[in-house]
Amino acid sequence: MPLSANNPDRKSWLHVDKNSDFPIQNIPFGVFLTRDDIITIGTRIGDTAIDLGALHQLGYFDGIPLTDDIFLQDTLNDFIADGRKTWRAVRNRIAHIFDADNDTLKNNKSHKEIVLFRLDEIEMQLPVQIGDYTDFYSSKEHATNVANILGNTNNDLLANWLHIPVAYHGRSSSIVPSGINIHRPQGQTLPFGATEPVFGPSKSVDFELEMAFITTVANDLGEPIPVNEAEEYIFGLVLFNDWSARDIQKWEYIPLGPFLAKNFASSMSPWIVTLDALEPYRVESPKPIKPQLPYLQYKGKKSYDINLEVAIQPQGAKETVVCKSNFKHMYWNMSQQLAHHTVNGCPVNSGDLMGSGTVSGPTPESFGSMLELTWKGEKPIKMKDGTERKFINDNDTVIMRGYCEKDGTRIGFGEIITKLLPVYVKK
Amino acid sequence: MPLSANNPDRKSWLHVDKNSDFPIQNIPFGVFLTRDDIITIGTRIGDTAIDLGALHQLGYFDGIPLTDDIFLQDTLNDFIADGRKTWRAVRNRIAHIFDADNDTLKNNKSHKEIVLFRLDEIEMQLPVQIGDYTDFYSSKEHATNVANILGNTNNDLLANWLHIPVAYHGRSSSIVPSGINIHRPQGQTLPFGATEPVFGPSKSVDFELEMAFITTVANDLGEPIPVNEAEEYIFGLVLFNDWSARDIQKWEYIPLGPFLAKNFASSMSPWIVTLDALEPYRVESPKPIKPQLPYLQYKGKKSYDINLEVAIQPQGAKETVVCKSNFKHMYWNMSQQLAHHTVNGCPVNSGDLMGSGTVSGPTPESFGSMLELTWKGEKPIKMKDGTERKFINDNDTVIMRGYCEKDGTRIGFGEIITKLLPVYVKK
Repeated sequence: MPLSANNPDRKSWLHVDKNSDFPIQNIPFGVFLTRDDIITIGTRIGDTAIDLGALHQLGYFDGIPLTDDIFLQDTLNDFIADGRKTWRAVRNRIAHIFDADNDTLKNNKSHKEIVLFRLDEIEMQLPVQIGDYTDFYSSKEHATNVANILGNTNNDLLANWLHIPVAYHGRSSSIVPSGINIHRPQGQTLPFGATEPVFGPSKSVDFELEMAFITTVANDLGEPIPVNEAEEYIFGLVLFNDWSARDIQKWEYIPLGPFLAKNFASSMSPWIVTLDALEPYRVESPKPIKPQLPYLQYKGKKSYDINLEVAIQPQGAKETVVCKSNFKHMYWNMSQQLAHHTVNGCPVNSGDLMGSGTVSGPTPESFGSMLELTWKGEKPIKMKDGTERKFINDNDTVIMRGYCEKDGTRIGFGEIITKLLPVYVKK
Repeated sequence: MPLSANNPDRKSWLHVDKNSDFPIQNIPFGVFLTRDDIITIGTRIGDTAIDLGALHQLGYFDGIPLTDDIFLQDTLNDFIADGRKTWRAVRNRIAHIFDADNDTLKNNKSHKEIVLFRLDEIEMQLPVQIGDYTDFYSSKEHATNVANILGNTNNDLLANWLHIPVAYHGRSSSIVPSGINIHRPQGQTLPFGATEPVFGPSKSVDFELEMAFITTVANDLGEPIPVNEAEEYIFGLVLFNDWSARDIQKWEYIPLGPFLAKNFASSMSPWIVTLDALEPYRVESPKPIKPQLPYLQYKGKKSYDINLEVAIQPQGAKETVVCKSNFKHMYWNMSQQLAHHTVNGCPVNSGDLMGSGTVSGPTPESFGSMLELTWKGEKPIKMKDGTERKFINDNDTVIMRGYCEKDGTRIGFGEIITKLLPVYVKK
């Protein structure tokens, strides 16, 4: 099926700013609450949100095999489970409906009143019910930096890292969309030089700049997904902030990995950008440093050129960009991650979320966490308002952004905006 | 509300064998497929399965505030979300309906035909949609044995173990009920003395004898659950087999914990025994060896005296019991686990599952895994059929059982029966 929705020459009859993340070539999917308090599945062109449930009821998807209520749901899971052929047909149809040369909806005022929303009339929700959340650790630069900073592993990559797309299971219940504020976690830490732990607010709350992909139903219990088929099961990507409490992590993580240091919150961007929309931005992955086992050997370009940045905005002040990185730096790509995750027969479902791990690049300004950017707090970052940051302060807002750009077309992810509130106090 | 369902003197008009795990004092909850291919929520007395959806439609729960379809669902999540007051009212009512002195249903032949099933007429399902699965590591004997066997930590408990109920996140998607067979996983391992990993079937597939508890909706993002309130949010318990591939685990687990070594499968018993039914079997937890931080300090008896055993049945042969343990040995109890899990504000939902970690007791026959029982394969176990086992062979069936017994009343969990099939071959 041709990806007509990607036609770079297409214009929409909806207004799109030149620097918008959401031209008609993007067509992401999300879930929002409307001014009428109805939850629906939607897309976005420019700064206009589009109610796909209403469009479907009005007959605009006629001819595509879809159940009547497929968009009248509070998550995308069922739509994603319909598979790639359906996603493509719907995305192509949306491009057609909003094409500057098509005036069917454009000239139907009453339909437009039902279907179109300004962004201030809607409230974005978590787009999927996340069954399982896995977080990889796939940036060589990040893994090397962490080894150096912790200083407990000969300051180098661990022995398995160049063979395994290392990952751990995270907590789905604390994943929230952009706009939901979170609280500084409390927990056990071991103060420097102490032998007994203390309890209190974490003193080193950090972000981790990540991308995450959302899967469809992929395999039965026991069945591996071959690396070159893996992308068939990837619906799309979001920006992801894997919040971390470094002091809690340091005391708890041996031998079973991070737990309370991570599961107090993770934040994601609410619009899922399809893998199809990212097709023009494919690039080669980094060359393997060591031979990889056959089940991890892939053909073609499996990485994506996605510019990423992180800003910190202190309360009442302007933001300071503290990190600029790119998703293309990841040593292990998504196809390898999914092949590895299922090589033992682990089943993957619609709505599962897989984080990339911190996206650190080769240069110091491209490191994807404060742990690395400030080298464990030794080199604080100067903010525009004159203050300094080693980690994230109470009432700081952390903003993540990401976009692809090529030949004048920009496909973006929007933002994750999250404020870190002080420790929770029961009302 | 009195726990009248626990009255030890009550008899049922349904037949119950003397050694049954399911006397009228148990009344567990599960989900099954009936002879008419209908999924319903049910309970069990003796060897009779009871369709609660049908009972509710016939008016037997009148007066208890329940939605019409609360039992006509394919998971218990909504019923569990209704909270403890509702669980108790329903359990007490079931005890009343099936009491030997109550002949309303007993004498209604047409109702009985709709409501009652022989066990061979039903197929047990996974009782909950598991949102998040957490596995603890709460047996001191197990943690000590593992430290000794791995020999990489001064042969002793790690520094944090006596302060933290250590846990990691597991994979929900591969949790299956008793009766579902699983496949031997493939993966990367590092052969002894080698520097490069190889790929192939795991050579050391192991069980881990655990209990797991199922929660109800407990807290908002950011809000901790106090240790002495934790049991309010525990619906009930099941037997749990945390299948493990030791050779895969050894190569992959540093630094982020077990991943493919565990997520190929976990098995659970299908009937959830309520915490209320276990009330008579409360016992003191082991005394703390080191002082515990205030958020982990509890009052009263928070452990449960539950006898556990594991048997291995080779293909076509009789089973051999290889382990006898008890849940009361766990150093960290469920209240401490839930308080710890939420102290950083991590939200807990209806249907979340929390494994205890391997239940190893103080004596060699009470160790809850082959890793410990055979001391990493150095001391193979003799089977009744003359063969030996270091780990689990292809086509072996692993059976776990558990029950409480006191003053002539036995409350049991039934069994987990799982056959380990050879490596998956695509049909």
